[in-house]
Amino acid sequence: MDYSKMSPSDVRKLIREGKITGQTSGMCDGYAQGNLLILPMEQAYDFLLFTQRNPKPCPILEVGDKGSRLVKTMAENADIATDIPRYRVWEYGDMVGEYTDIAHLWRDDFVYFLIGCSFSFEGELLSAGIPVRHIEESKNVPMYITNIDCEEAGIFHGKVVVSMRPMLAIEAIRAASITASMPRVHGAPIHLGDPENIVIKDISKPDFGDSVTIKDGEIPVFWCCGVTPQSVVMSAKPPIAISHAPGHMFITDVKNTLLKD
Amino acid sequence: MDYSKMSPSDVRKLIREGKITGQTSGMCDGYAQGNLLILPMEQAYDFLLFTQRNPKPCPILEVGDKGSRLVKTMAENADIATDIPRYRVWEYGDMVGEYTDIAHLWRDDFVYFLIGCSFSFEGELLSAGIPVRHIEESKNVPMYITNIDCEEAGIFHGKVVVSMRPMLAIEAIRAASITASMPRVHGAPIHLGDPENIVIKDISKPDFGDSVTIKDGEIPVFWCCGVTPQSVVMSAKPPIAISHAPGHMFITDVKNTLLKD
Repeated sequence: MDYSKMSPSDVRKLIREGKITGQTSGMCDGYAQGNLLILPMEQAYDFLLFTQRNPKPCPILEVGDKGSRLVKTMAENADIATDIPRYRVWEYGDMVGEYTDIAHLWRDDFVYFLIGCSFSFEGELLSAGIPVRHIEESKNVPMYITNIDCEEAGIFHGKVVVSMRPMLAIEAIRAASITASMPRVHGAPIHLGDPENIVIKDISKPDFGDSVTIKDGEIPVFWCCGVTPQSVVMSAKPPIAISHAPGHMFITDVKNTLLKD
Repeated sequence: MDYSKMSPSDVRKLIREGKITGQTSGMCDGYAQGNLLILPMEQAYDFLLFTQRNPKPCPILEVGDKGSRLVKTMAENADIATDIPRYRVWEYGDMVGEYTDIAHLWRDDFVYFLIGCSFSFEGELLSAGIPVRHIEESKNVPMYITNIDCEEAGIFHGKVVVSMRPMLAIEAIRAASITASMPRVHGAPIHLGDPENIVIKDISKPDFGDSVTIKDGEIPVFWCCGVTPQSVVMSAKPPIAISHAPGHMFITDVKNTLLKD
């Protein structure tokens, strides 16, 4: 089955029926995928404020109404509690379980946050002829914890996590321009060149994901990463939180190209 | 005294001392000014969510910490309860008083919202040689209530209010490009040309502000307007809310050009 050409609603149906439980990378070509975080209302204000103060690592695609599982605008007839292939449940910062459906855990005070994902801008980079090395090498994108503080909001604070893609300087300039027009999926890079400026000691040893080849003449280019909100939330240790499992994203009905604004 | 060349901190000091109580239009040339809304924590989540869902009419510059009067990032040593020339206090949607200082009314559960203002992009338009008719004619910008619904959030809902500037089509194209790069001050226009498409019956009769001349060959260009959040909040009738008085804005330390992102 070639999921890359299927519609988001058809793939979400297979996910809901438990027929897809794996990663969503490459599915529904051209459509935006989103990171998920679910919090009780008690922590929702602080987290919403955190995303407002840190739009580059935490670009919000949509916030649900209190208690509502129905996705409002990013997809039609989608249930946030069933339409993601794999969820992780966190209690006081510890992962306590993985599920392919969380309908039985849903509460009236839950609020979901859908957060933009770099999958969306990588398609745009590839279309513009800019290399995306971890895709070329069939790896996960390399990610690093920087010394850059997020702006605090209530219980939430921590360092910005970045993803890195190596390219030529001239490609970096074009990549900056392309991604600057996509603020809902992390926007422009926050750094390029010398990784030590943001206290990355060894570019060959990412904190998350895989190391990729940096060819002669290429420079590393760093974007804020969607791992930031999850890592910040987990370190804030709320009594309960639910996220997607890494790579198991929510597939929206919205084309990546429409995230330009 | 020529306030246009003074620094924001010097002007804020005069405001704090009660020596300036009038409108801030034209003060501190090049620096962004912001709309103010203060709400109790009980309504703050719904309003923050409303701004997240309606970023073009409600572009947030900054949200304060609960109970804090100290401006966090948009200005240094600024007190949101004293550094605006004139405030309006609203109870259940009715204006119950105007004050030049609201320190005596401040509460531990108040949260302030600073919202971007079209003053910021008008400077950029003028710099690019694009006419801003209401400035040429020494009037207030014409504003209209449209038939476009805001996305609801909790108790907050209502129609988008737009401001209008007439210009040639070729100028509208450049103005769209310039303002698209300034999402924190309303961003790109939401409409141009036939005003009836957004149910403006008579372009010569704005709902707020003044009518301006539309010259032969010009088309009206419509931007989301910062009056939207205030009108929406007032129609939601929270027990208490505090805003700036129209035209009496908070002057930030941030240059308009830095609001491009």
